[in-house]
Amino acid sequence: MNVAMIGGGFMGKAHAMAYAAMPMFFWPAPAIPVRKVVVDVTEAAADDARDRFGFEVSSSDWKSVIERDDVDVVDIVTPNDSHAEIAIAAAKAGKHIICEKPLARTGEEARPMLDAVREAGVIHMVAFNYRRTPAVALARKFIDEGRIGDIVNFRGTYLQDWSADPDSPLSWRFQKKVAGSGAIGDIGTHVLDFARYLAGEITGVHAVNRTLIPDRPVASGHLDKLGTGGGGAGGERGTVDVDDETITLLRFASGATGSLEASRNAYGRNNYLTFEVHGTKGSLVFNYERRDELQVMFADDPADARGFRTIYTGAAHPYGEGLWPIPALGIGYGETKIVECYDFFKAIVENTQPSPNFEDGYRISQIADAMIRSGENGSWVET
Amino acid sequence: MNVAMIGGGFMGKAHAMAYAAMPMFFWPAPAIPVRKVVVDVTEAAADDARDRFGFEVSSSDWKSVIERDDVDVVDIVTPNDSHAEIAIAAAKAGKHIICEKPLARTGEEARPMLDAVREAGVIHMVAFNYRRTPAVALARKFIDEGRIGDIVNFRGTYLQDWSADPDSPLSWRFQKKVAGSGAIGDIGTHVLDFARYLAGEITGVHAVNRTLIPDRPVASGHLDKLGTGGGGAGGERGTVDVDDETITLLRFASGATGSLEASRNAYGRNNYLTFEVHGTKGSLVFNYERRDELQVMFADDPADARGFRTIYTGAAHPYGEGLWPIPALGIGYGETKIVECYDFFKAIVENTQPSPNFEDGYRISQIADAMIRSGENGSWVET
Amino acid sequence: MNVAMIGGGFMGKAHAMAYAAMPMFFWPAPAIPVRKVVVDVTEAAADDARDRFGFEVSSSDWKSVIERDDVDVVDIVTPNDSHAEIAIAAAKAGKHIICEKPLARTGEEARPMLDAVREAGVIHMVAFNYRRTPAVALARKFIDEGRIGDIVNFRGTYLQDWSADPDSPLSWRFQKKVAGSGAIGDIGTHVLDFARYLAGEITGVHAVNRTLIPDRPVASGHLDKLGTGGGGAGGERGTVDVDDETITLLRFASGATGSLEASRNAYGRNNYLTFEVHGTKGSLVFNYERRDELQVMFADDPADARGFRTIYTGAAHPYGEGLWPIPALGIGYGETKIVECYDFFKAIVENTQPSPNFEDGYRISQIADAMIRSGENGSWVET
Amino acid sequence: MNVAMIGGGFMGKAHAMAYAAMPMFFWPAPAIPVRKVVVDVTEAAADDARDRFGFEVSSSDWKSVIERDDVDVVDIVTPNDSHAEIAIAAAKAGKHIICEKPLARTGEEARPMLDAVREAGVIHMVAFNYRRTPAVALARKFIDEGRIGDIVNFRGTYLQDWSADPDSPLSWRFQKKVAGSGAIGDIGTHVLDFARYLAGEITGVHAVNRTLIPDRPVASGHLDKLGTGGGGAGGERGTVDVDDETITLLRFASGATGSLEASRNAYGRNNYLTFEVHGTKGSLVFNYERRDELQVMFADDPADARGFRTIYTGAAHPYGEGLWPIPALGIGYGETKIVECYDFFKAIVENTQPSPNFEDGYRISQIADAMIRSGENGSWVET
Repeated sequence: MNVAMIGGGFMGKAHAMAYAAMPMFFWPAPAIPVRKVVVDVTEAAADDARDRFGFEVSSSDWKSVIERDDVDVVDIVTPNDSHAEIAIAAAKAGKHIICEKPLARTGEEARPMLDAVREAGVIHMVAFNYRRTPAVALARKFIDEGRIGDIVNFRGTYLQDWSADPDSPLSWRFQKKVAGSGAIGDIGTHVLDFARYLAGEITGVHAVNRTLIPDRPVASGHLDKLGTGGGGAGGERGTVDVDDETITLLRFASGATGSLEASRNAYGRNNYLTFEVHGTKGSLVFNYERRDELQVMFADDPADARGFRTIYTGAAHPYGEGLWPIPALGIGYGETKIVECYDFFKAIVENTQPSPNFEDGYRISQIADAMIRSGENGSWVET
Repeated sequence: MNVAMIGGGFMGKAHAMAYAAMPMFFWPAPAIPVRKVVVDVTEAAADDARDRFGFEVSSSDWKSVIERDDVDVVDIVTPNDSHAEIAIAAAKAGKHIICEKPLARTGEEARPMLDAVREAGVIHMVAFNYRRTPAVALARKFIDEGRIGDIVNFRGTYLQDWSADPDSPLSWRFQKKVAGSGAIGDIGTHVLDFARYLAGEITGVHAVNRTLIPDRPVASGHLDKLGTGGGGAGGERGTVDVDDETITLLRFASGATGSLEASRNAYGRNNYLTFEVHGTKGSLVFNYERRDELQVMFADDPADARGFRTIYTGAAHPYGEGLWPIPALGIGYGETKIVECYDFFKAIVENTQPSPNFEDGYRISQIADAMIRSGENGSWVET
Repeated sequence: MNVAMIGGGFMGKAHAMAYAAMPMFFWPAPAIPVRKVVVDVTEAAADDARDRFGFEVSSSDWKSVIERDDVDVVDIVTPNDSHAEIAIAAAKAGKHIICEKPLARTGEEARPMLDAVREAGVIHMVAFNYRRTPAVALARKFIDEGRIGDIVNFRGTYLQDWSADPDSPLSWRFQKKVAGSGAIGDIGTHVLDFARYLAGEITGVHAVNRTLIPDRPVASGHLDKLGTGGGGAGGERGTVDVDDETITLLRFASGATGSLEASRNAYGRNNYLTFEVHGTKGSLVFNYERRDELQVMFADDPADARGFRTIYTGAAHPYGEGLWPIPALGIGYGETKIVECYDFFKAIVENTQPSPNFEDGYRISQIADAMIRSGENGSWVET
Repeated sequence: MNVAMIGGGFMGKAHAMAYAAMPMFFWPAPAIPVRKVVVDVTEAAADDARDRFGFEVSSSDWKSVIERDDVDVVDIVTPNDSHAEIAIAAAKAGKHIICEKPLARTGEEARPMLDAVREAGVIHMVAFNYRRTPAVALARKFIDEGRIGDIVNFRGTYLQDWSADPDSPLSWRFQKKVAGSGAIGDIGTHVLDFARYLAGEITGVHAVNRTLIPDRPVASGHLDKLGTGGGGAGGERGTVDVDDETITLLRFASGATGSLEASRNAYGRNNYLTFEVHGTKGSLVFNYERRDELQVMFADDPADARGFRTIYTGAAHPYGEGLWPIPALGIGYGETKIVECYDFFKAIVENTQPSPNFEDGYRISQIADAMIRSGENGSWVET
């Protein structure tokens, strides 16, 4: 099955690796992804991406690539402002689509994307990869089996510190016209995906959003430079018009409540994507920085042996034998993308919609919009 | 200096131990507390408390005890609904007062207590003991010295699980007329004390409060039974009219924002009193369940050696040589009360008001009231 | 029951606190310890200890104190070289004895102490307090109940860093004639106590012992100054003639094997007293630096929920309701001494020998001697 | 550069993924590995490996494959007993060689392998991949820069539990004629690699080795089934003639001492490959189960901020920008193999010997032999 990957940055690397490695991990594989075409903004960049990521051909013209007969799948790993145009075109061309998150800059922008894939009848997926972490899938399994009872409370955080330095560059991630929002869309949406995956639909939000660093050095060169070391101290600075941080109260359809905190300015946190879920029969705790571990407490354990269990996922996870034969050989970011790739191709072959798909992506964009509105209004916003 | 302790329950034990041990830890001591009189509801209970806690005499009549000439200090360790009456009487009798937290059931009730001690000119303290943990005092020192810069965000939690079982007894802690509120007053106020101690005054709150278990077995016998094992399954149940859980957004006078979560129904958490503070130059993390440790991250550490440091407090803490000569000999709940006792008697001898005192207790009660109102209204409430 | 405490240093503080607090924690108490006489090397020091630790009278003459009719219990908290003389005299005077660890500098020195208490028929205890930690007692309970099966392997460590600095003072703890040995006797014996308590008798050792810092500044003033800040850099230095560190292989009577590592020069470790026990049905892990927690893994847990449980001890521990009503209120060093005190007085009242007693102390001194000999010979030594 | 991979099991998967992903991570890559031929024991197995792992052709005849002109590199991922024969043949054919660890079943068997590659002048590497973990490389960097001073003590462990169940199958890993030894060769050698990498050459060992489970169910089918679920309870059992566990004292050329513990029967441990290194100026702690973290303590930190720092590796590691752009995106087992692959091809292109190479592999086999002899003799063995 032939893939056209639009975009050749850090996320392209993760996807390319997944295409190569997926059949090695899942065998027999539902399909063998063939890295057919890679697209980048210039021909030189595209050629470089082709050689680096093992694609057959390269192009700087995504529109013509999407029309190719020998392309079955379009993979969108570009900045957020181009997702909609590419996805809608790909859907019209009848291609199956996997799109990086967030699906779009706003719910309004995401809506026609959802309409387009529905109309075209293609398979669609949005790449909230973290729920593919085996420990997260195990959390979902415990919930589904009723082993922690009804969920009462969900607390999720996503804390990083790569933008805490006021001199880190003004990449597209700090510009509303490209990114749509800041920490909310970039990382907060991953927490929203966890929240919906584990605790169900969200019906209301109340948010406090802040821009902590109002301007940053204008970036030159590489378009998606994270972290420190942008322009010099004396260089030009541009305005940041997105949020650096949000703290949001959540209401769930089930009656549960919760909170979400997302920040890229939390010194000392690197990829601190966590949840703590309290149920009527137990609790679950996860921290992606220690992603091979799920903590679970069962309230009905005997009195002298109650406490959180630290489970190393692997053999126990929902994907058969485990990605590696000994649990703590351990997975990295790459494996979450490999599992995502597997689930996507499996869905194509079985002609079912995977989860999360564009519907989820659209809902998450709507909720993110509501968070922004709530922060502006200082009041609850229904989602 | 002679102490009259009103109340002989679990908290009385903690205070009695502090009176005996304080001079052993702090020598020369500012004063030697003499355990003069202990008061409990019946004479038998009072006699028992006298023998157990090493007091000279016992009484079941707190009013006459407060009038005794040979009493210098009144220590209030009763349920919340009697704090005001006792404290006001003690102030009028010219006694120095240490009162357990929360100061009163509401801000309205706390106000005349503050007025009374001011008018009487006595020394007054409210027993938010957790800020006496050396690791917390060290956090404050780092903040005061500017080592984590300006505080941007404060997140505090206090999670326990002793009331998660629907069959745990309906003690006074679940009755509004005695306790004033539930998790908010009982444990949330400790987080408010941390928040104000570390990040300054709170100016606004937005809360979601819930009662998860609407009725509980009517307790018989022991008045402050925590945890499981109350009445039988078939016994009488009474209504819980206080909150089990709150999640609250915080606004600080400094411009910082934050959140507070308090629950006594969080399975697997025991005394999970935590904070995470992000500053413009670093971060601090504390968890009372591992109370000998403070985690601190300094943003200006060299790039290859940045990360949270886990500091075992002890020699490094603000009280000279440390409570024990090797940091990780480790402190328990008792030592926080011993330090509190020291600070209280030191303040008496030096004729200064300790911190936190009734002013703090009153402010915290006001903020707790605002949390309750906000939960009812679904909107921000200024404090 | 009247106590004469011989010695007024850091350990005297811990014992004095235990005498005051024991009945508060355990009520009704088996007996109320009365702090009758405290002895220190000078009258001034003894007077100071009397006031600080709440004793009735003071003395600088331990011999006459031991003969007093109104003394029931002799508590030996002096440096190691005086344990034997005092204990033998106290036994002859018919007093019950609690002696700090190690019982003596060598097994040879300990033997007549054991003979003396046996002959006198008094109650005797050696103060290996760490096994009184509730989490350690819970570990023993799990082993006794067969819940981790037969023990296969015991690994214990005791790591500190207060003597890692070559300029920390030459206290008595570095002098063979006072201390007998270094890390082996001071802290290694605590691990031996754990090993015997949890895994049974030790039959052979093979050790590597080293003195890492051959000389230290001669201390002036305080006789038991731990840590840094002794003499100046240019001052006189004296020879260290004891070990700084040992790594020892262990053989147990049961057929189990194990290892012991003790060092006071392990930078970053404070009171890192740990064990890891592997059995045929599970494992146990403990670290005193996080002393409220016991980790246990049961091999027969279901495949998807296997992992170490972190149990907060408290209500679950073997001493009834728990020392504090909520597990993670947490204990410190003091509470281990309070439990020790309880067990000692309970044994006196019930006229049984507590554990560990002088027999254990003697055995541990023998094993420590064997560790020293093994290090000298480079071969296994039977114990 | 064309690769012939001999073996198509779990380790083949890891290597195949590394060949595909290495250029994606390191760009420009020193060379692009081409997956040319894969060999397995039967043609069907080899065909399957070819399709799964993306090789061009397959074969069941390793001898002819090694002679192919279009093969530059031979990758040996077979059980231990065939390493020597294949490696010596590959060297004679002038191929560069990467061989899984341990290099051979014994030092005696490894010696001619080392001679052969030296004679042939080819590039050779032995696949002790764990030192490629960025946190381990950072530890080495800190040591090289003198930041923890001279190493005093090295403690390493490698604990797993997949063979703790007496009914786990008798795979080749429990048969001396195939594996050479048990836990010593399988996992203990990884600790030896850490020990030599971080603390230098080992000059003496004293070991206690034990076989805890003397017989196991004869395995049928899959040749390298780890963990539970072999034959039925009533099936045939065969003798285990290798060690399940070792505890070994170590002496280093530098004068440092240390210990090594390896077990595949330690319930609750999964891939607990750890080290703790004490130096004269600080300490290092690593646990592969949390492989993105290195803990380091610097003794010269200010007194109020001393403690272990938990460093998330990534940007700070020795390989330029980091494998992923945010440290805690995190690496898994795969990335250690990708870095290994990079270092191997870089060495080929630069015509230098990588580290660890066959010389290291031979030394480690010698030391492993000495551990076995020491366990038999009960005495120190020089290495």
